[in-house]
Amino acid sequence: MKTVGIGIAGLGTVSQGVLNILKVQQALLAKRSNARYEVVRVVSRTAKPDVDLLGAEFSHRLEDLYEDPQVDVVMELIGGESPADQLIADALAAGKAVITANKAVLAVKGDQLLGKQSVQPIRFEAAVAGAIPILQAITAGLAGNAIHAVSGIINGTANYILTAMEQDGVSFGEALAAAQKLGYAEADPTFDVDGTDAAHKLTILMALAFDMSFALDQIYKEGIESLTAEDIAFAAEFGFRIKHIGMLRRVATGLEARVHPLLIPQSDLLAQVDGVQNAVQVSSDSAGTTLFSGPGAGGAATASAVIADLVALTRGGLGTNPTSTAHNAASSGMYVPLERANDLAVLPIDEVYGGYYLRMLVADQPGVIAKVAQALSNHGISIDKVIQRPAAGRTEQVDLVLLTHDALERDVNLALTELHGMFEVSGEVSRIRVAPVNT
Amino acid sequence: MKTVGIGIAGLGTVSQGVLNILKVQQALLAKRSNARYEVVRVVSRTAKPDVDLLGAEFSHRLEDLYEDPQVDVVMELIGGESPADQLIADALAAGKAVITANKAVLAVKGDQLLGKQSVQPIRFEAAVAGAIPILQAITAGLAGNAIHAVSGIINGTANYILTAMEQDGVSFGEALAAAQKLGYAEADPTFDVDGTDAAHKLTILMALAFDMSFALDQIYKEGIESLTAEDIAFAAEFGFRIKHIGMLRRVATGLEARVHPLLIPQSDLLAQVDGVQNAVQVSSDSAGTTLFSGPGAGGAATASAVIADLVALTRGGLGTNPTSTAHNAASSGMYVPLERANDLAVLPIDEVYGGYYLRMLVADQPGVIAKVAQALSNHGISIDKVIQRPAAGRTEQVDLVLLTHDALERDVNLALTELHGMFEVSGEVSRIRVAPVNT
Repeated sequence: MKTVGIGIAGLGTVSQGVLNILKVQQALLAKRSNARYEVVRVVSRTAKPDVDLLGAEFSHRLEDLYEDPQVDVVMELIGGESPADQLIADALAAGKAVITANKAVLAVKGDQLLGKQSVQPIRFEAAVAGAIPILQAITAGLAGNAIHAVSGIINGTANYILTAMEQDGVSFGEALAAAQKLGYAEADPTFDVDGTDAAHKLTILMALAFDMSFALDQIYKEGIESLTAEDIAFAAEFGFRIKHIGMLRRVATGLEARVHPLLIPQSDLLAQVDGVQNAVQVSSDSAGTTLFSGPGAGGAATASAVIADLVALTRGGLGTNPTSTAHNAASSGMYVPLERANDLAVLPIDEVYGGYYLRMLVADQPGVIAKVAQALSNHGISIDKVIQRPAAGRTEQVDLVLLTHDALERDVNLALTELHGMFEVSGEVSRIRVAPVNT
Repeated sequence: MKTVGIGIAGLGTVSQGVLNILKVQQALLAKRSNARYEVVRVVSRTAKPDVDLLGAEFSHRLEDLYEDPQVDVVMELIGGESPADQLIADALAAGKAVITANKAVLAVKGDQLLGKQSVQPIRFEAAVAGAIPILQAITAGLAGNAIHAVSGIINGTANYILTAMEQDGVSFGEALAAAQKLGYAEADPTFDVDGTDAAHKLTILMALAFDMSFALDQIYKEGIESLTAEDIAFAAEFGFRIKHIGMLRRVATGLEARVHPLLIPQSDLLAQVDGVQNAVQVSSDSAGTTLFSGPGAGGAATASAVIADLVALTRGGLGTNPTSTAHNAASSGMYVPLERANDLAVLPIDEVYGGYYLRMLVADQPGVIAKVAQALSNHGISIDKVIQRPAAGRTEQVDLVLLTHDALERDVNLALTELHGMFEVSGEVSRIRVAPVNT
């Protein structure tokens, strides 16, 4: 039985999860990959914590990981762009395979880092949707398919908050506080609630599913901060649930790539995914619509994906032959085409086409609906459904909530400007996009 | 770019789906696997149909497939146990890789056939759950996990029938007729409705998830023929949906391996899977509960899984080196341990423990519930919930429907015998198992 030497950078919850699996499932892993795993080195900035390092040498220098000839694979589990980017590049240059769970560095520097694969590859199943083997599903399980669309709940914190707002009728702030108390949201939850984390993950999905560059700046992004319990309740009346979604969709004019709240029909499987769960739905030409769900975060779940990469590398030859060639990278790396599909352009959000949910506070007087409908109609937008009802705590105004038929986002924005200029409309119009029917 | 030669046995819908993907997605596949696929031979018993064989030579002799040195991989898409078993064995002996979609032959002869892997492996993603890459998820994506349980809706025909019975309130017979009309059920639907097809697939899941032998005879099996629309309606009142499930569950005393109708809480994702869709839920120690859903049948969907195997074989080295060694099988085959885990025994159904739904027609007179409760109590079974109501079209009798707390199946059978002996109970007691809470 061959031995695979592991070097781990970072000692957070994911690293601890990895160490735990390597300890507890040693026999299982030996059987499944015909290899013995040896944690050779662990490197962390902080002092050595009270964690079983399985006999590994502990130090503070990242270089120790790839300078050690006993290390076959470097696990980059420190997160963030820097110094992770340098570590990955250096480890590859030293002929080490790399496993990373780092969505941030891939979303920004993925092209550059994957371009450095020569002797050994980078794998990164853990970077998207935690335990769910979604990257493997897209690159291998659905390898024979042209993918039309990918839609996912890929941030568990945001999904937890939306679920709590819906089920407990609490505000965004209250739900966020609850999530923090339960450890589902960080002390600084900015990246989870403003959509940045989801955009990182969607960038990776975009690169793999559509042969695109890892280009975070191409992703349109909105968070969940401005959603209200009222919006969630009105959406339910129309038969929808509101989820924070990362969505890629190939349309005639290009690729939609967007992260924002979305109204999804209640009967859709994706709408049923609650709490900190993640789910990714893939629409493709032969396999139709497939859905993959599971825990999207947490040390053990993320570690499960890191170990999946480790086993894949081992089955692909890692550890057998220390001077393995580029063929090894080809057979055990993920499929990531280095020649990008340049024929596909990401659409500006203005050019996205779909249904819209609009909620506004309007004066309670005759003819207001007609005026609102006219303002929409001026921009080619027609109304599908309407709810009008007394607004809580107001006597002069009513809530007017409507779903539009499909419209161009640019036209909706123009209509919103017109609505905001009407004296019958108070404050901001709340606008949430509706899931396209055909994804 | 290397060339991979393909030989296809059979020309049914799956083969036609494979030919179509190879034709339509030629460029995509070349990019994803760095290979050109050439269909060298197609063999079928029937006359050459009006199908584009992509230049392949057509004949009626199965031997032509593996006798041709141009063929690298034989796709066994004829189905059934024989002559598929011989073809797979002969192709392996001739040094060909094999891809099969044949659950029946694997469920019965899987051990024997996989034991013949030497130069090249067998892959069989298409044998379970159509387009869903569930075998890859279990063997690779969750490779670092000890799996506790696998529960799946793995027969689309049965699920279509149950969904139709529920949504349209029709009988089993009517729903079956509708399924046949729509092409979702075969002229002879026996294997779909009596659970045989699901048992075939569960045998494969058992082998991969629990390192067990491919032993169809170990699977307990019930079909959906005796389910009624009334059962579905009563289950809904209790908050459940009835699904036909294949279930594997590791408990303290062994492994449960069973195929039968099951009451699943309405809020479970698995309960939301409707129509011809399949879904498989996996519970494991690190990854928690993951769920994989999608189309479980159909030519294109099944072909998608066949092509996934083809790409995996190619990435693993197929076609590069015609005299590839056993290492090749190790790196590009599925993980199927040939040394079985003999410490795990499948439990007889009598020893399964869980909740039960019982429906009976009882005399409409005082004290009957007490007598029924006593009969159950005599065997250590206690009642969780009860519904009693006038039975349709009867004046002397009422429907008595109850959910039990967890009980041993053997005790439930003894209680049923006692109930059947009571003059207050008319006809057969309908008995359906309830999903364990912890899977």
